[in-house]
Amino acid sequence: MNDLDLWMKACAARAERALDDYLPDADVAPERLHEAMRYAVLGGGKRVRPLLVYAAGEACQNGADHSAALDAAAVAVELIHVYSLVHDDMPCMDDDVLRRGRPTVHVQYDEACALLVGDALQAQAFDVLARLPVAPALTVQALQVLTVAAGSAGMAGGQAIDLASVGRQLTREELEGMHRLKTGALLRASAALGGIVVGAAPEQRRAIDTYAQAVGLAFQVVDDILDVTGDAAQLGKTAGKDAAADKPTYVSLLGLDAARALAESLREQAHAALAPLGSRAERLAALADFIVLRDR
Amino acid sequence: MNDLDLWMKACAARAERALDDYLPDADVAPERLHEAMRYAVLGGGKRVRPLLVYAAGEACQNGADHSAALDAAAVAVELIHVYSLVHDDMPCMDDDVLRRGRPTVHVQYDEACALLVGDALQAQAFDVLARLPVAPALTVQALQVLTVAAGSAGMAGGQAIDLASVGRQLTREELEGMHRLKTGALLRASAALGGIVVGAAPEQRRAIDTYAQAVGLAFQVVDDILDVTGDAAQLGKTAGKDAAADKPTYVSLLGLDAARALAESLREQAHAALAPLGSRAERLAALADFIVLRDR
Repeated sequence: MNDLDLWMKACAARAERALDDYLPDADVAPERLHEAMRYAVLGGGKRVRPLLVYAAGEACQNGADHSAALDAAAVAVELIHVYSLVHDDMPCMDDDVLRRGRPTVHVQYDEACALLVGDALQAQAFDVLARLPVAPALTVQALQVLTVAAGSAGMAGGQAIDLASVGRQLTREELEGMHRLKTGALLRASAALGGIVVGAAPEQRRAIDTYAQAVGLAFQVVDDILDVTGDAAQLGKTAGKDAAADKPTYVSLLGLDAARALAESLREQAHAALAPLGSRAERLAALADFIVLRDR
Repeated sequence: MNDLDLWMKACAARAERALDDYLPDADVAPERLHEAMRYAVLGGGKRVRPLLVYAAGEACQNGADHSAALDAAAVAVELIHVYSLVHDDMPCMDDDVLRRGRPTVHVQYDEACALLVGDALQAQAFDVLARLPVAPALTVQALQVLTVAAGSAGMAGGQAIDLASVGRQLTREELEGMHRLKTGALLRASAALGGIVVGAAPEQRRAIDTYAQAVGLAFQVVDDILDVTGDAAQLGKTAGKDAAADKPTYVSLLGLDAARALAESLREQAHAALAPLGSRAERLAALADFIVLRDR
């Protein structure tokens, strides 16, 4: 296991502990809702968004101990991500039964419960962020970043465009616009939050934002590639689903080779953006490599 | 039309304008989502939560002009309320087709759209609050109040308890516990936010909180009474639904007369709580009367 793998493993474990701490206990009323929230969130996932929070924090840190604030930011972005998965898996959306190798929430519990789990997780994400152990002015900035990334100008809006795109032929610009909102906005917010909570300087924040935009797009391009080349056991979810649902993807639009070349070019853009941050950005650089070179 | 009616009408119109201003335009992408968000929110409703924001602000104001902050707080609580209605009306929850006399969002659009409308409205509510034109420390306090009121320890949690209660005989304590979360938490938060954004003193905030707890409970008791005694045309929604769904209500638990007596007693408690606030609390007192004496 190389150094990045060890760091990622340690960060994922750290995020898991923080999520466990911040989620209400399953024996607190309403018990079934809290149990289902924990079922949805805990026990796996790549935790890519927390990794971005931690790596961006490391790249911008000023010597002080920001670990509690970074944990809170990591929890907030992951809760938003998981809530979106729970709702996306529901019958009226993607109607998926398998997620991270386990039954989805509406299968394990029921649809009404899945709806409320997603709703409560979104509120919980903003609650965690509203209690950040940083100056109120930074807390407000962090909240403004995450509310936009989650709402109709971000993730929820991208999801709406995605729904409207099924069976349509999109241009590359339209596909990119959809993904910039659907997955890019939250990845970008994750990196931004890492910078904000450690008090990053404006030029550091700009470098991280340019990096995160390239990585966010690369993430989706690679997801589309893996949907074609991966298998369910590796992915922990149903493969080939996008193609079967006649959803536009980078592979259907560009072909497999060109999609791979695009991912590689975005990886290079991400690396270039990090130059102003110096050697402390090495985790961010390694994360860009991981996101493009992963096989699941 | 008496003075309270005129004031309520003016406040509802003011809230409607503020909601219109804060919601994304329907010609901004994603257009269908934004159109559906506006359909869900605009054009009616009693706007009880904004009324509580404005009345609590008036009761605690210090002479400065807080109208922009009160508008933002009113918008935030109403967006949370409407998102919950949109999700509650969905087939996997209450499966209701009529709301405010119009087709519910999933009927007018579709289920996936209704799911995303609710999700995006919740994010929008917190976004509006994160941009409050007040000091960051007050913004953070306001956000902490609303995130708890919306989440699993508030509205979403109450909804989960409600679902688990169908067909069960609840004790009065259990019924009250459910409503304290399901509707009480957001009504209480509405009054609290009115105080917070105008910089209310701690003793003012305590008086408002005691008032709001009584009013919140009274609101639900009266809702249960109206579900039995009202008709669909007056209510703008399906009447008799709770009884038909075998849901526990104050009427089913206490009988109609005792439920009416309870509402009256809560109205008196609400009035008593306002004593420390003096004459500036007259709108809050009148609102308590309205909530208990309304016929729809």
